[in-house]
Amino acid sequence: MTRTETQVTLIQIDNYGPWTVAPSPKREPDLQTLQSRLYADLSQLVAHHDGYVFFTRFDNMIAVTNGIDLAGHRRIQDAVSNRYPVTVSLGVATGASPREAVGEATANLQAAGSAQDGERTEILRGDPLCEEGAVQIAHFDVNDATSQYTDELNAFEVFRHIDRGYSALLEYMYDAHDSLSFFIGGDNVISVTAGLDRPAFDAAIDHVEETAGIELKVGVGHDLRAGDAGMAAKEALERCRERGTRVEVGASESAGRA
Amino acid sequence: MTRTETQVTLIQIDNYGPWTVAPSPKREPDLQTLQSRLYADLSQLVAHHDGYVFFTRFDNMIAVTNGIDLAGHRRIQDAVSNRYPVTVSLGVATGASPREAVGEATANLQAAGSAQDGERTEILRGDPLCEEGAVQIAHFDVNDATSQYTDELNAFEVFRHIDRGYSALLEYMYDAHDSLSFFIGGDNVISVTAGLDRPAFDAAIDHVEETAGIELKVGVGHDLRAGDAGMAAKEALERCRERGTRVEVGASESAGRA
Amino acid sequence: MTRTETQVTLIQIDNYGPWTVAPSPKREPDLQTLQSRLYADLSQLVAHHDGYVFFTRFDNMIAVTNGIDLAGHRRIQDAVSNRYPVTVSLGVATGASPREAVGEATANLQAAGSAQDGERTEILRGDPLCEEGAVQIAHFDVNDATSQYTDELNAFEVFRHIDRGYSALLEYMYDAHDSLSFFIGGDNVISVTAGLDRPAFDAAIDHVEETAGIELKVGVGHDLRAGDAGMAAKEALERCRERGTRVEVGASESAGRA
Amino acid sequence: MTRTETQVTLIQIDNYGPWTVAPSPKREPDLQTLQSRLYADLSQLVAHHDGYVFFTRFDNMIAVTNGIDLAGHRRIQDAVSNRYPVTVSLGVATGASPREAVGEATANLQAAGSAQDGERTEILRGDPLCEEGAVQIAHFDVNDATSQYTDELNAFEVFRHIDRGYSALLEYMYDAHDSLSFFIGGDNVISVTAGLDRPAFDAAIDHVEETAGIELKVGVGHDLRAGDAGMAAKEALERCRERGTRVEVGASESAGRA
Repeated sequence: MTRTETQVTLIQIDNYGPWTVAPSPKREPDLQTLQSRLYADLSQLVAHHDGYVFFTRFDNMIAVTNGIDLAGHRRIQDAVSNRYPVTVSLGVATGASPREAVGEATANLQAAGSAQDGERTEILRGDPLCEEGAVQIAHFDVNDATSQYTDELNAFEVFRHIDRGYSALLEYMYDAHDSLSFFIGGDNVISVTAGLDRPAFDAAIDHVEETAGIELKVGVGHDLRAGDAGMAAKEALERCRERGTRVEVGASESAGRA
Repeated sequence: MTRTETQVTLIQIDNYGPWTVAPSPKREPDLQTLQSRLYADLSQLVAHHDGYVFFTRFDNMIAVTNGIDLAGHRRIQDAVSNRYPVTVSLGVATGASPREAVGEATANLQAAGSAQDGERTEILRGDPLCEEGAVQIAHFDVNDATSQYTDELNAFEVFRHIDRGYSALLEYMYDAHDSLSFFIGGDNVISVTAGLDRPAFDAAIDHVEETAGIELKVGVGHDLRAGDAGMAAKEALERCRERGTRVEVGASESAGRA
Repeated sequence: MTRTETQVTLIQIDNYGPWTVAPSPKREPDLQTLQSRLYADLSQLVAHHDGYVFFTRFDNMIAVTNGIDLAGHRRIQDAVSNRYPVTVSLGVATGASPREAVGEATANLQAAGSAQDGERTEILRGDPLCEEGAVQIAHFDVNDATSQYTDELNAFEVFRHIDRGYSALLEYMYDAHDSLSFFIGGDNVISVTAGLDRPAFDAAIDHVEETAGIELKVGVGHDLRAGDAGMAAKEALERCRERGTRVEVGASESAGRA
Repeated sequence: MTRTETQVTLIQIDNYGPWTVAPSPKREPDLQTLQSRLYADLSQLVAHHDGYVFFTRFDNMIAVTNGIDLAGHRRIQDAVSNRYPVTVSLGVATGASPREAVGEATANLQAAGSAQDGERTEILRGDPLCEEGAVQIAHFDVNDATSQYTDELNAFEVFRHIDRGYSALLEYMYDAHDSLSFFIGGDNVISVTAGLDRPAFDAAIDHVEETAGIELKVGVGHDLRAGDAGMAAKEALERCRERGTRVEVGASESAGRA
């Protein structure tokens, strides 16, 4: 089986904070529109290379970009500057763990200057993978979220419950497994992991249930690209629903291990 | 001064969960694109009536809609069905507190059926305000976020810090003040509040610093519409920056109270 | 009945040609994406004030903006600069005929400098209507376009036929009636007219049939805003379909004349 | 040199006319928004495979899709249905001339039923190229359009001049050379051609000057994909500007012929 080696790209809007208040504070709905459209575009641009982007803080987004070289990154960067009033800088790195990769990707950008340095624009630094590494993606959702939460509690309390579960998972996966977890809407969280086995996911689900009172299930995929690993994870999650199980590992993963 | 009376609209994508996996799981970047574009459009549609929308869970969004009547809601609903492959249901309610309003808005939708009932589509239920009420908006950000966090820690750890601060604020403002708080990107959180004074905001900032180690400042605005209250809050936050203060209350608020 | 007095806004992308080739020619699909998204956004921004925009040349768009004052124009201009890597200049004018209005609107911009003067950006010049004037909108389509053309000829020849009909109508309406006609997709053309009666439309349809061999029908609306006049025109066109007639004048128009 | 063999895809919105008036006529700006966003998305989707789309009638668009197989077409079709309230059918064909290709692509769709048959949705028919063929793209623009027209005449008259030149070119290139010409905004027209040499372009430019009084220049590119051929054409057009010539043939074309 191909070794897991996650390539992470930090996408940072250049000097964004100052822009949002110059010459005076811009209307918040216009900023929200800009941010969410930029995220939508980046989702598509990165997806065309089978990568995944997470909105994270919107002005700093984290992407899994295995298979995208520097020329591909430059093209994404150009697409942003050709469509938006802001530009982005990109830091790229790979690591045995997602934590290591995001650490180095960030360091690559930080070495070029401050995020609010008006002169530091459209940086592209880092070393995409030469040899192929694989990605492990875990797609979690909440058991019976609609019947237990959405149809029962007020919408903000539902959100609060989901957020608690997400925060508990985020902290645990990062501390215990150097993994990066992102809320992606609804009751869904994606963790970018590396080399985790079924008991590790069982323990994570136990932890979230104990600390936040939220019951999760998870489908896990493993493949050369985030897009394929993520789709395998989604299909595995469907099997959880069909079988009533709480951890399913994708076919390509199983095949890979056989 | 006009009494604070928050009008909240719950915007719920109809039967969304099943749609995302029918006939088989849709590619995640396509779902992210759909969700973020829909949020961008709703931001604009609601902003044209001077309202605010928060992405919340993306499939369930919470909006502050003072001044938008049922015809305006219907027009927003129609715009969604004319642009997207999904439809939305809307529950509207007002309350002395934002918590009360979101509770009733949710109840209005829940009374019409489950969020995953394929027959329950494009519901519009509730009673927009007849008399005018005002809205209070508090716009928080993190002190020196770029120099202390973005330029120093890895991007995921920065996000984790911001998320901890946000979660602490969310819980506190809801429990102590029946207020609804939303992360809006970067290091920014907006709380929809009602009738809170300066000491209440001071206490909230103290609480977040003690429990999550994050130092916040806040600008507060109060006006008939979320858009105007929010802009007053942003301008007040600018004054915090200029003056080195941590709570500033918007001019219109002051004027209102004089 | 309120006098027809068309307010026209010329929307011109600032210094666009040079931008498209600096520092080297940008990829055409990226330019097409920018242009069509900008047009989509302007359609919505202007529609929120019940105006109409036509894509025309995309880098120069013509809008009917009765009811939008200078502050409204400024807000639209700001929205563009907050979302796009380009800015727009706006020339506004009113006239007894649409031709007169577009002439003066253009002159207002030309007086400020060349469209490719890098220093001439975000101009806003002109005098929106103080008193209310009304707009007349005529919505044409081709009889049996699907059965006669789309399902029969190759797609480019269908387009060529539609284009011939459009060009014939454009020339005639401008020369005979100082009216501005715009292809809006499918087999649809909208003419912005002033004070034309039923025989005038009959004659226009005859002319197009004789010169281009294309049979049209038309619905006509008249109201204070382009949005309402345009909707009345569309409803009148539906009545053409139901009744088998080729010219129908909208109810509000009839009422206005009674 | 690789033989020119143009692959054309007809993209047709399914049953669009009836949708626009059901249950009652939809607001025109909403339809314009839908059409232009769909075109923007298709531009990007097709460009990711190095193809070109032209908006044509918006409800029927013509694309040059050399290099995109049926699976790629299916993915584009799925992307539309996952983002829009309408679906598209696709007819694909190749031909020695663009006219032949569009004819067969259209016939493939027509054989599946009427464009307004509510049961005929998401058709995908045709035979993408097995062997590689090349594409020839000619990018025309108007000499001194800004100084002669945009800065001098009223905006509608400029448009009328451009439209006349475009129509003259469209007719000539189709009748004389089985080529497909599309206005793409500003003063730009792209012709999809096959095997045309420099004298053929000179004659086309002469024809347009004689019949419409518009002076054109043209850059020509030839490559395996529309994207690369189109970029070569744009670079050739830049050379026309630099050298003051009116026909320049792209480097890759020259190389191919050497």
